[in-house]
This record gives sequence, C-alpha cells and structure tokens, in this order.
Amino acid sequence: MVSFPRKISESTVRRLSLYLRFLEEFEGKGRLTTSSEELARRGGTTAAQVRKDLSVFGSFGKRGLGYAVPELAAELRDILGLSRTWRVALVGAGRIGSALFEYEDFRRRGFRIVSVLDADPVKVGTEWRGVAIRHESELERTVREEGVEILILAVPADAVQKIVDRAVDAGVRGILNFAPTRLRVPEGIALNDVNMAVELEALSFALSNRTEDA
Amino acid sequence: MVSFPRKISESTVRRLSLYLRFLEEFEGKGRLTTSSEELARRGGTTAAQVRKDLSVFGSFGKRGLGYAVPELAAELRDILGLSRTWRVALVGAGRIGSALFEYEDFRRRGFRIVSVLDADPVKVGTEWRGVAIRHESELERTVREEGVEILILAVPADAVQKIVDRAVDAGVRGILNFAPTRLRVPEGIALNDVNMAVELEALSFALSNRTEDA
Repeated sequence: MVSFPRKISESTVRRLSLYLRFLEEFEGKGRLTTSSEELARRGGTTAAQVRKDLSVFGSFGKRGLGYAVPELAAELRDILGLSRTWRVALVGAGRIGSALFEYEDFRRRGFRIVSVLDADPVKVGTEWRGVAIRHESELERTVREEGVEILILAVPADAVQKIVDRAVDAGVRGILNFAPTRLRVPEGIALNDVNMAVELEALSFALSNRTEDA
Repeated sequence: MVSFPRKISESTVRRLSLYLRFLEEFEGKGRLTTSSEELARRGGTTAAQVRKDLSVFGSFGKRGLGYAVPELAAELRDILGLSRTWRVALVGAGRIGSALFEYEDFRRRGFRIVSVLDADPVKVGTEWRGVAIRHESELERTVREEGVEILILAVPADAVQKIVDRAVDAGVRGILNFAPTRLRVPEGIALNDVNMAVELEALSFALSNRTEDA
C-alpha cells in the first residue's frame, strides 16, 4: 500500500528486502559471491526477475562472475534507506505495541523506537527498557523534541486519523499502521497498512479456490 | 508471497479484502448500494481498477445502478473463503502469539484459533481464554484431532522448517509465517510470510528515495 517514486512497485521493494536478508546470511558465513540463480532459488522467484529487480538501480554484478556479496548488500542497504538510523515513535502500548517494541529486527535494521505513547493513565509514566511511556497528548512535543520521522500505530481504529493528522503536522513523514482503518495522508507522506486479518484472508482465498479447482 | 490460482494477483486479493471491509461498514449503516467510484475513493484506487478486480469473478453491479451492498459483500465473503469457519493452530505463545490470539478481527472473520502450542514448559498446561497451551511435540496429534487447516507461526527462526514439515504431513494446508525465515512448502500448500521489518523497510525506501528526488 506504499506508493514509490520512480515507479518501483511494492513487490520489487519487498523482494529487495528479501535479497538483502539472504546476502547478510551469506556475509555471516564469509561467502564472497552469489548469483542471480541462487538469490532466485532462495527467494522463490526466477533469476531473470532478480536481474531485473537489481538492474533498476544500476548495474551490479559481472556476467559469469555473479555478484560480490558485501558490495551488493551495501548497495541494497543504501537503496532501502538502511545505512542510517530512523527515529520511530510507537503509539499504543498494548499487546501488539509491546510485541513490536521487542521486535529485534527493527533495532538491527536501524529503526530505533525512541518514544512510546499511550492514552492509558496506568501505563503512562512506566518504562519499557528505559523508554518512558508518555501520554498521547504529548505526541506533537515528542515528535519535535525527539526528531521522530516514522510513526508506528498499534492502537484501536477509533481516533487513529486524528493521531495521524497531528503527527504529520508535527513532522512525521512515514506511518506503519496496524489499525484496521484506511488513513488519509497528505502527498509526500509514506503510509503502509498492515492488517493481520487481510493476511489470513489471502490464505483462505488460496485454499478455497484451490479446492474448487481440484 | 501467496501464489494464487487463476492468475489472480496478491494485490487483487488484498484489494478485495479491503472492499469487503468498506461494504460491511456500509451494511452496518444500513446502506443498500455503492459504486465503483466510492469503493475506489475509500480504497485509494481507481473506479476502473475496482470494476476490473470484481469482473474477474463474474459480473456484479448494474450500469448506472451501482452495486447492491449486501449481495456484493456476500459474494466477496464467498470468494475470499470467509463463508465458513477455518480451524487454526497458533505455534508460539510469546508476545506476538499473544497479540495474534487476542486479535478480534480473526474471530470475526471465521478464523478460530482452536489450539496454541509452545515449547516452554512454563507455558504448557496454562490456558488462554479456555484454550489449553500444549507442548509443541503434540503438534501432529493436535492437527489431526482438532482438524487444523491453517497454522500461524509466531516463533523464532530456528527449527521453524521442521515444525512446518510436521504440520503439513499431519494435514495443515495453509501457513501464516511471522518467523523471519523463507520456508519451503510442497505444491498445493498456501504460504504467506509477514515480516515486520520488511514493512518498515518499504517505508524507509519510500522516504529515502523521495528525499533524493526532491
């Protein structure tokens, strides 16, 4: 649901993220080269698709020699905006919020949750690993003081739009939304909706239609 | 990451899920008709795209009259495999597992988590809302006895493939995977990978490239 510049499709970006994971795994094993065939096999796609995905961003790799693992990984981190740290605020200190806060891969990828906000007075003032939970009313101040660029929304659907409007006004540029609501954001703001039920429905669709076809 | 029969793309299925959400909202307000224009506006797409998405499954709606809300909603539930109940087992009783277990939209959509499994002896034997947490070693027996069709994997990356192999052997047909691992499944098994870091990377990509373009 994110729209990309340069007409890069969402699925291309997702594949680039996957390739980067494989390359980092190879790096961890000390391997120096890989091929489009190997990346394709690991990613469940074709070698032609891998070459096409990578060619959009310039020419990597040499015919017959494959790709240099550390160089390609560094390039992909650059392309994906991962050679820097992103300052993230999490709104919603419930179950999903707490699961996301503990999600190791975020930190590893440079997404630093610098602030947690919630409307529940029982939670406000407590701490998660040294990060104080602030009241939602402090959203604008938090975004400005902490230089928050990305907001993760892990709150119920009601009133989510207002939170987004306030955050964007205060300077947030990207939103990862777990609330089952379609948000409106101004042009230039990146929005990505994650809906767990939609993910399960993709499965029930596949299973239902497969049964009919069989 | 799910592959679909009849060459329906993953993004089409995701849009159908969204349209269904809007239609159910309209149903809740007692509205009887809608248009491709309205669905497009709500879903951030074009009316032509909405008509194309729906036409794949037959002809709904009448020119000039729009779509009948309850009928179209019922059709979409049918298409998405939501006119029935799916029996789901959750492997992993950690933070993400617990957030998913409490996710209201699953129940509402007919995804019934009938069993929770974990390897932690401290958790095994306790209950979540009347559902006993069983030991992971009982996976095969659980799948068979409970008629589990879909598995949600909310466990760390190690040993996930083995769990999947065992579950598939025992009869599971669909897998929603939250482990940051690329799984191998036999043909005919539906697999959907959800990776939170990939969702954030789609944002960092959009933000980085937007900055460069500006």
